[in-house]
Amino acid sequence: MTITGASLIAGQEIHGSQGGFEVVNPATGQMLETTFGQVGIAEVNLAAAKAAESFDHYRVTSPSERAAFLEAIARNLESARAEIVERAAAETGLASGRIEGELTRTTGQLQSFARELRLGEHQGIRIDRARPERVPIPAPDIRQRQIPLGPVAVFGASNFPLAFSVAGGDTASALAAGCPVVVKAHSSHAGTAELAGRAIAAAVIECDLPSGTFSMIFGPGASVGQALAAHPAIKAVAFTGSQGAGVALMRTAAARPEPIPVYAEMSSINPVVWLPSAAQTDTQGRAASFVASLTLGSGQFCTNPGLIFVPAVATDALDAITSAVRSSAGQTMLTASIRSSYETGVDHLRGLGANVAATGTPGETQNAPAPALFTVTSDQFLATRELQDEVFGAAALVVTYDGPEELRACLESLQGQLTATIHFEDADLPIAASLVPILERKAGRIIANAWPTGVEVCDAMVHGGPFPATSDTRTTSVGTLAITRFQRPVSYQGFPDALLPSALQESNPWALPRRVDGQLGA
Amino acid sequence: MTITGASLIAGQEIHGSQGGFEVVNPATGQMLETTFGQVGIAEVNLAAAKAAESFDHYRVTSPSERAAFLEAIARNLESARAEIVERAAAETGLASGRIEGELTRTTGQLQSFARELRLGEHQGIRIDRARPERVPIPAPDIRQRQIPLGPVAVFGASNFPLAFSVAGGDTASALAAGCPVVVKAHSSHAGTAELAGRAIAAAVIECDLPSGTFSMIFGPGASVGQALAAHPAIKAVAFTGSQGAGVALMRTAAARPEPIPVYAEMSSINPVVWLPSAAQTDTQGRAASFVASLTLGSGQFCTNPGLIFVPAVATDALDAITSAVRSSAGQTMLTASIRSSYETGVDHLRGLGANVAATGTPGETQNAPAPALFTVTSDQFLATRELQDEVFGAAALVVTYDGPEELRACLESLQGQLTATIHFEDADLPIAASLVPILERKAGRIIANAWPTGVEVCDAMVHGGPFPATSDTRTTSVGTLAITRFQRPVSYQGFPDALLPSALQESNPWALPRRVDGQLGA
Repeated sequence: MTITGASLIAGQEIHGSQGGFEVVNPATGQMLETTFGQVGIAEVNLAAAKAAESFDHYRVTSPSERAAFLEAIARNLESARAEIVERAAAETGLASGRIEGELTRTTGQLQSFARELRLGEHQGIRIDRARPERVPIPAPDIRQRQIPLGPVAVFGASNFPLAFSVAGGDTASALAAGCPVVVKAHSSHAGTAELAGRAIAAAVIECDLPSGTFSMIFGPGASVGQALAAHPAIKAVAFTGSQGAGVALMRTAAARPEPIPVYAEMSSINPVVWLPSAAQTDTQGRAASFVASLTLGSGQFCTNPGLIFVPAVATDALDAITSAVRSSAGQTMLTASIRSSYETGVDHLRGLGANVAATGTPGETQNAPAPALFTVTSDQFLATRELQDEVFGAAALVVTYDGPEELRACLESLQGQLTATIHFEDADLPIAASLVPILERKAGRIIANAWPTGVEVCDAMVHGGPFPATSDTRTTSVGTLAITRFQRPVSYQGFPDALLPSALQESNPWALPRRVDGQLGA
Repeated sequence: MTITGASLIAGQEIHGSQGGFEVVNPATGQMLETTFGQVGIAEVNLAAAKAAESFDHYRVTSPSERAAFLEAIARNLESARAEIVERAAAETGLASGRIEGELTRTTGQLQSFARELRLGEHQGIRIDRARPERVPIPAPDIRQRQIPLGPVAVFGASNFPLAFSVAGGDTASALAAGCPVVVKAHSSHAGTAELAGRAIAAAVIECDLPSGTFSMIFGPGASVGQALAAHPAIKAVAFTGSQGAGVALMRTAAARPEPIPVYAEMSSINPVVWLPSAAQTDTQGRAASFVASLTLGSGQFCTNPGLIFVPAVATDALDAITSAVRSSAGQTMLTASIRSSYETGVDHLRGLGANVAATGTPGETQNAPAPALFTVTSDQFLATRELQDEVFGAAALVVTYDGPEELRACLESLQGQLTATIHFEDADLPIAASLVPILERKAGRIIANAWPTGVEVCDAMVHGGPFPATSDTRTTSVGTLAITRFQRPVSYQGFPDALLPSALQESNPWALPRRVDGQLGA
């Protein structure tokens, strides 16, 4: 595939004429080939209209047709693996091995939604058969299923150029649900976006789906992105990125004549708690694995552990963390502006009175700032709300605490998080048990004796959490449950079988799991 | 039970001191006994704080404990049946028979959530066991369940003093989910609200639950209601009422430092389509049943059929409807102000150029205005968006259409609806089939050859729909699926069995349905 710089709108290549941009390799500062064309409002309207036009055709595809489509996308991505990995590594400064893994995760994600479609539980089939004998009036036949919401606008993330981008989890789950997708690609890895977009556009043709099922556009978030979220044909928004941009989309969606759901995954500092016995056990190993999690991908993971609670008496643990950070090296960040925000964030923590406990060394490439470790007491932490502000990158704040009451007070003061982690030994179990109810209220995923980076793609995953971690705590953006974000229930009362959609017909032609007359699995 | 006019806050009777009000019998204009005290912000804060304080205690109750609580509420309501029916009939002008039925529906609703709790599917248990052999890195054990969102603010409806009020579906489903509830009672049937509130408060004591599990307050929506929705301890809002009040709550919830979900069931004109053959078959019977549905409860049902599409050529059908409306009589509306809004709405339709085809006769009581029937052509309907404005009460608009294309254009122009109904005979099936995809996008429930009034409480019911029918099309406020509105998923990674909540322990002590390693019912 050639990278042309064009947006892909309902099967057409349209080179946006509202200004061009190039992508810079953040490790070298070198400008990469291809000028990308930014589209304007006319192209936003076209993509949204084509998506709306395709919706009724696309949504009636059978589970196996839709699964085959997702599998075709995965195959097309796999065919372009070498090209995608090369371009993505150049655009992000991430190591090829990391990109290889992320591509495998991306195709695996598409395949997992294909399996979900064949399993069919997400269709939410509930059947209450007629009861003509019911008094005082007969009960009608009522059947419920979940249908797709409509066209979805997806905003790719900077930090995962594949798994949370054009062909990432939001697109995969929306397409799986039966929703056409319009992606506003992230400009920092536009070439990777175009390659992934072409893999999807080719699958649309191979599977003979309506062309508006998928579009991908280049343009500024503040104009093109906002116009897309405001377009009447768009019925949901999925976003991964900063709290500022996510909240702006929430406001736009809420202010529409018809408000729509926004699934924004935004901001999290992912607290980690070391309980007293854990803090005294394998201190070096724990410290090393903490810093490995902290610096992974230059700390640019949504689940990066930016806050760690350590008993004040556990000076060995604090020393071990400090020296592990001191011997760590910076890695290339995704863009110069992300690096600059990191430095501002580090200055911000310092300005709030956090003590600089250690800094690593900057990396050898451009935009590879030194990891940083700060310490505060729990009193300071409780007194200064801004210490909870996310610093995107490899910076962490250690909060030293005296006893479980102080610890619980700190945890109660936390904002919503994607994850919360507890490290404990057997002797810590009673305290750990007392923390779980607090952490359940604060986070989408609670991790025992491990690290939050590394988000499994599976049925049981929750990559979500209370605001400001996400805009909608009722959902997850990773794992098979993510499909339910793009659905709504509809019930059909008194329908003759011939008029019912296949999913609800008495003979169950799609072999879907059903709840019939109150019985599961009937 | 005595009606005292007090708010019930966490087990305490608190007579609000911010002004008193009485309730008027709308059929007679007579002022009923008891002065109710409006509370102020201090009491809102108290109720919310008590709910928050109770949350961690209440939410860990087992399914059977919570089911027993709902059943105790149902029993207490049943014990007070005579008193409740008498007071509710006096406060609403509705017939005792209707109130009797509504009370039975209310207790049935509580019992259906008790059954749902014992079934346990809403807990959404998903288990992915550890796979130490997975390459390149072992897969951890991850377990997901749904937990309650937190304290819920419930705003009762005017039109169902029991089933959509203090002990109605919103309260029942929130309590079932494990959420403490604070009800802002509707002042037009405050005595009924107090009786129902006392039934719940007594059940809280009987079941030895924390006192803040339930509170009920009297006060103005614009101050007390808004303060409740804005309170940081409140994590979701459930509301049934007008679009204006619902949208105000949506705005308040979106503007909070931590935005929260709002489930507002607001406005719907419930289109009914008569296809050509149906319009020629049993015309008198269909017209009579239409007018019965239209005038049921003086037209004060959320699912009242306010819009009916009739083939222009079917003059017999139109004549039959016209004469059925002409011979109908008005019934008492819920309040003088609702009656006055009805009259304004009828004037509004007339002002928009709708033709007055028939009016019935006013009822013999106060506030019992005449039913009204208007007609427009499909061209007029398409040209004037305001013809879709809801007139709460027994007024309907007939749209005459020429052929399926005009009909489809009208249906495409509709706003979101709770219900849509098609009447068809065999010869109409191809047209009916072509309408279903449109109606699926417009409504939460599609009804074949019946009427939308009468909302079954069952698994398959959807009482919801796209905005402005509701604020959140992903949900229903009637039926067992309503419980999922008040939940969010949490996952637990690498937890030892002893630290897991009972719902997720390997031995499955609550015998919940589970998805284990991708297998349903494992």
